[in-house]
Amino acid sequence: MVSYAAHDLIEFLAVIPENSVGLVSPQTLNIDKPIQLQSGTTLESHELVYETYGTLNSDGSNAVLICHALSGDHHAAGYHSQDEKKPGWWDTAIGPGKAIDTNKFFVVCPNNLGGCKGSTGPASINKATGEPYGRDFPLVTVKDWVQSQAQLADALHIQQWAAVVGGSLGGMQVLQWAIDLPERLRHAVIIAAAPKLSAQNIAFNEVARQAIMTDPDYMEGFYLKHGKIPRRGLMLARMLGHITYLSDDLMRDKFGRDLRVKKFNYNYDVEFQVESYLRYQGQSFVDRFDANTYLLMTKALDYFDPASDYEDDLGKAVSRAQADFFVASFTSDWRFSPERSREIVKALMKAKKNVSYFEIEGTQGHDAFLLDIPRYLLLLKSYMNRISM
Amino acid sequence: MVSYAAHDLIEFLAVIPENSVGLVSPQTLNIDKPIQLQSGTTLESHELVYETYGTLNSDGSNAVLICHALSGDHHAAGYHSQDEKKPGWWDTAIGPGKAIDTNKFFVVCPNNLGGCKGSTGPASINKATGEPYGRDFPLVTVKDWVQSQAQLADALHIQQWAAVVGGSLGGMQVLQWAIDLPERLRHAVIIAAAPKLSAQNIAFNEVARQAIMTDPDYMEGFYLKHGKIPRRGLMLARMLGHITYLSDDLMRDKFGRDLRVKKFNYNYDVEFQVESYLRYQGQSFVDRFDANTYLLMTKALDYFDPASDYEDDLGKAVSRAQADFFVASFTSDWRFSPERSREIVKALMKAKKNVSYFEIEGTQGHDAFLLDIPRYLLLLKSYMNRISM
Repeated sequence: MVSYAAHDLIEFLAVIPENSVGLVSPQTLNIDKPIQLQSGTTLESHELVYETYGTLNSDGSNAVLICHALSGDHHAAGYHSQDEKKPGWWDTAIGPGKAIDTNKFFVVCPNNLGGCKGSTGPASINKATGEPYGRDFPLVTVKDWVQSQAQLADALHIQQWAAVVGGSLGGMQVLQWAIDLPERLRHAVIIAAAPKLSAQNIAFNEVARQAIMTDPDYMEGFYLKHGKIPRRGLMLARMLGHITYLSDDLMRDKFGRDLRVKKFNYNYDVEFQVESYLRYQGQSFVDRFDANTYLLMTKALDYFDPASDYEDDLGKAVSRAQADFFVASFTSDWRFSPERSREIVKALMKAKKNVSYFEIEGTQGHDAFLLDIPRYLLLLKSYMNRISM
Repeated sequence: MVSYAAHDLIEFLAVIPENSVGLVSPQTLNIDKPIQLQSGTTLESHELVYETYGTLNSDGSNAVLICHALSGDHHAAGYHSQDEKKPGWWDTAIGPGKAIDTNKFFVVCPNNLGGCKGSTGPASINKATGEPYGRDFPLVTVKDWVQSQAQLADALHIQQWAAVVGGSLGGMQVLQWAIDLPERLRHAVIIAAAPKLSAQNIAFNEVARQAIMTDPDYMEGFYLKHGKIPRRGLMLARMLGHITYLSDDLMRDKFGRDLRVKKFNYNYDVEFQVESYLRYQGQSFVDRFDANTYLLMTKALDYFDPASDYEDDLGKAVSRAQADFFVASFTSDWRFSPERSREIVKALMKAKKNVSYFEIEGTQGHDAFLLDIPRYLLLLKSYMNRISM
């Protein structure tokens, strides 16, 4: 009996690896300062839920802000409980001895305003009505997020981030930080991003939005009030998203034309493995994400265009920046291809900024920025390690 | 008064250009011979609607079969009436003096079995029930279409096609013709096709299918019986399709990030021109296409894999062919990229077939095969003109 118990204990302790930040708990900040949104609406107050890893040093010079992407949240690293099956979404990069080393840095990751994991968003209760905001929640932009994240920095007594870091939509927030609040960050780490969406990017977002908004259970955006969820639409949006996150090559390596059973059914049940994968991804997403937040995030992506405030000249926009830049892209990423990252790099070079740029080879597609790709994480680690405090 | 009438007459006559096949009428063939489908089902009889342009010569050696793609039909060229706003879908290529010259060739284009423009398909009445087949209509494959088109050839007393010609899914039918009935065609013209779908291709089809099948108005496929149409699902499927038909570059040139009005709405109404374009394409498609046919066509695409009958060796599959081959692809086509066409060309070369291969430069994407691209049409014309009778 004793031997079984010991074995169970080992299994139990083995859940959390040694280079993890370990058990973490989200915190909530109520920001009472009004925030004037780009849309013209003012939010009198809002809440941000966030996590921190590591310890803030005495002069507050070792703080790193992590900005999340479309379906991300504040839970970037570690585990909420011993039972949690998977760690936070960027546990590959954040932890003791990892690329973003929590022995060195105090890492802060908030759930963005408009999110659905605890920060004020469309699923929150609108004090004016006593019901969830639903579609009454104002659209927010990347610029708005930078303001909101700056309010979080104020509350945490962080005058200047050692680095602001993000991939995809997260990387767009980093670029906006460097332009809007140049004196508040020393390093900008922009991964798998673009200076603005292409027409094709917007088109994919529009199909996702139409999938959600034409779902009869969307109820004009007030589905929560009616006890419904636009499951079909959100599922389709996620399935479509997944296609754009993976490269054609990776899909071929992962699924090819493999069938679930050995022969064709000649009906519309799942036949190919890739169908099974997509349906599973779509269905499981519905249980953990709010459709109105999904819509809001796609609009924030569409609206993002920092050059538009500077006569459509990105070079002029980034000339305000004081940070040094790390920019990385992935060769097989067709959502935000290396070409798009190079647009950012060219603008930075034109503005005579310090910029390190890396194109990472591989077949992983856009999702690469989240994955355990040694060369990529080594480059990131080496850059982060050189940051002085 | 007289002068107005003369002016009106000129306007009226000006509708149909001189190099058009002019006014055309579809014909219907009732095929009483049973067809054994790959799924195992036997159709005792079926109807095909088709159009012909030009005149069959005395020895029947100048007949050309045109195979249509996913949303195509039998109306490939000319006008059904003086009032018809647009000619048939491949009027750029078919007509007197055009690439497929109707002064030389007798051109035949059927609507495929399973279609929705007059040939027997899911919207046809099932004699067994007196109601539309709906989802009871058997799934058909590219091989089945070749059998059905051969029955049409028999009825028209065409022993051997001078050429079988098609783009996209049409090109796949051409390849299958060359393998399955090698003695019945002298030339195979395969444009913007692939030897089988990639996992990514299947994934896009699966999202389109889920959009249709999760629409509450789909009614398990029996929507016609219930007086409904899964409009939302079919609209989404078409919007998504359109993204894959256009290249990223073309979308940028055509729409960029242009707005319908000068500033952002900060709501979910149409803002970008590309959104407006996609919604229009989606909505107008719903009025002219049957959702069950769309589903069936996507499955025919997914199933297509002629090498699978030959130990997955495409070279072995095409070694049966007796035709000469013209293969063309478009550099900006990311649905069926030049790489996919080159797979076909390599297999043909390995099997020592005569093959002419062309990659056409341009930004038009997959849709290029339907467009008036001078270099492409000149290459096609020059090949077709060399066909001896």
